[in-house]
Amino acid sequence: MIAAVSGTAQPRKKLLGVLGGEAASPPPIWLMRQAGRYLPEYRAVRARARTFLDLCFSPDLACEVTLQPIRRYGFDAAILFSDILVIPYALGQRVWFVEGEGPRLEPVRVVTDLARLDRTNVRGALAPVFETVRRLRRELPAETTLIGFAGAPWTVATYMVEGASGSDFAVVKDFAYRDPAAFGALVDLVVGATVDYLVAQVEAGAEVLQLFDSWAGVLSEAAFRRWVIAPTAKIVEQLKQRCPGVPVIGFPRGAGMLHADYVRGTGVDAVSLDTTVPMALAGALQELVPVQGNLDPRLLVIGGEAMLGEASAILRGLAGGPFVFNLGHGIVPETPPENVAALVRLVREGKWR
Amino acid sequence: MIAAVSGTAQPRKKLLGVLGGEAASPPPIWLMRQAGRYLPEYRAVRARARTFLDLCFSPDLACEVTLQPIRRYGFDAAILFSDILVIPYALGQRVWFVEGEGPRLEPVRVVTDLARLDRTNVRGALAPVFETVRRLRRELPAETTLIGFAGAPWTVATYMVEGASGSDFAVVKDFAYRDPAAFGALVDLVVGATVDYLVAQVEAGAEVLQLFDSWAGVLSEAAFRRWVIAPTAKIVEQLKQRCPGVPVIGFPRGAGMLHADYVRGTGVDAVSLDTTVPMALAGALQELVPVQGNLDPRLLVIGGEAMLGEASAILRGLAGGPFVFNLGHGIVPETPPENVAALVRLVREGKWR
Repeated sequence: MIAAVSGTAQPRKKLLGVLGGEAASPPPIWLMRQAGRYLPEYRAVRARARTFLDLCFSPDLACEVTLQPIRRYGFDAAILFSDILVIPYALGQRVWFVEGEGPRLEPVRVVTDLARLDRTNVRGALAPVFETVRRLRRELPAETTLIGFAGAPWTVATYMVEGASGSDFAVVKDFAYRDPAAFGALVDLVVGATVDYLVAQVEAGAEVLQLFDSWAGVLSEAAFRRWVIAPTAKIVEQLKQRCPGVPVIGFPRGAGMLHADYVRGTGVDAVSLDTTVPMALAGALQELVPVQGNLDPRLLVIGGEAMLGEASAILRGLAGGPFVFNLGHGIVPETPPENVAALVRLVREGKWR
Repeated sequence: MIAAVSGTAQPRKKLLGVLGGEAASPPPIWLMRQAGRYLPEYRAVRARARTFLDLCFSPDLACEVTLQPIRRYGFDAAILFSDILVIPYALGQRVWFVEGEGPRLEPVRVVTDLARLDRTNVRGALAPVFETVRRLRRELPAETTLIGFAGAPWTVATYMVEGASGSDFAVVKDFAYRDPAAFGALVDLVVGATVDYLVAQVEAGAEVLQLFDSWAGVLSEAAFRRWVIAPTAKIVEQLKQRCPGVPVIGFPRGAGMLHADYVRGTGVDAVSLDTTVPMALAGALQELVPVQGNLDPRLLVIGGEAMLGEASAILRGLAGGPFVFNLGHGIVPETPPENVAALVRLVREGKWR
């Protein structure tokens, strides 16, 4: 068992307070994919790594890009620079990134493919990531929370089976429907590896964990319960035992009406909301747990009154309770950095009231 | 004003009864994209047309492919064989289909592109479609309902602006956020053309209309209200005036929590549900209007107990009220035709009870 790393003499960090159920004024803000291609200083560091995975596995470079948006904007949280596909990589699957197209994996489609995956080396294969976390924890400002993360099992398994980010999820759905026992074995393997990975992140200094389920929104209700809620619940349960006191944020993107069932069924401490979640649902979810979200990343590209107006509406609706300002999905590369600055000013200066 | 075409001496068609609020036992069944590539007889006819639009605009061929699934399975409804992109075509936009990739359009991105579109020739440009409807009405069995359709304005405008089926809707969202007045003018143009198109379908013999809003699920709440609910409400209002008594089914795919607002705000007579809609929401919506849906089309590829089990659960949950069995999205080409036969047998023979 690991005690949550927190200096008892220090004032509590804003994000941790909110995830503990407090309302903060102004609310904390960080943005998904805040370390990324929209920043010129990121692109400069990216150019020094041969591949995207090399960047993730270089503590020097990964630490630097994680810190860049903190220096520029003073976000309340830094999120470890890594990728959800380091889990398939650590399991022994071949993973690579095609510039401008996204990830590619040698797909797992039959039981014999599964037998080639090895769960025993997650900590070894991902040691550089934990070194990055350790350095970040030392280098971050005292008020900045460090968030670790992983992909949720359904989303990770989707990439493992499809071999790429598919558009209709035909291959993975057919696998799951045709042979739920084999697909379940794959999901369980990912659950175990993910727990090992996240526990090691906490040991290295991560103070909050987020589970990204980017493709949660493509499933029927029965499949959502089986492949999203159940495996996430297993992860949360093991995390609660092995690193109590570390809040877990779930992000079941596209979960629609099933958000409340997700929150109740998984035991996550907070829920991150995608752009489509309407205010009435966000408010209802906030009765259950702290919520995070959910500005459309395209509005950050546009900026100006369109962005400020919608961001203000979100703040007016949710900042009275436990709330973390964020986007509904990751920042896109064409975002002008000055729009991010304007958004942070809006949140911090409280002109949305 | 057009009176709904219905023989007063004949027994009422099952689908019309259900859309009027009755429960039917067994419930009516038809499947989105039931005339399509999964059928060998469709592929044979498709080979006789040079392009996909030629197929849509040939009354002989379009009529034949519309009738094929009725002959094979005896569905309760036939849906006109056409495409949602005939509206941009009728407005004067260049539209073509790349085999295996999908539609392409010369995109509308600035106000001057908009000025080139011409709303006055919708009936003329789409005359072959109305001829298809007339023939279908004569050739369909007496008990089979003829459904006409169009794309909903948001979805049609998405294709018009993106120029293809995009994956992140960046271009259309940026247009709508950056210049809502110009984008609103485009949407209004589509609203007007769509009403003309649907009224002409009813004059030719369509008995029910469905509005497909395939990309309704990518918007924030505010954008959903503005670009999905409001334009759909305008269409429904005009249809109610110009062809009273003709039921309109709305299909706001991915609307999640906003389904009830969509139903109340648009005035649709029934709502078609995508695969992700959970049973509790489907049941709540059925208190408002008849519902249609929502088996995962991938289960129709798999067949067997996986398909029959989930279809039975849907039937047990919804067939006690006004309900039309359908998929949550269109049939996919790799569907074995015998699985469709097994599904129809399940619905008709009532073994799901």
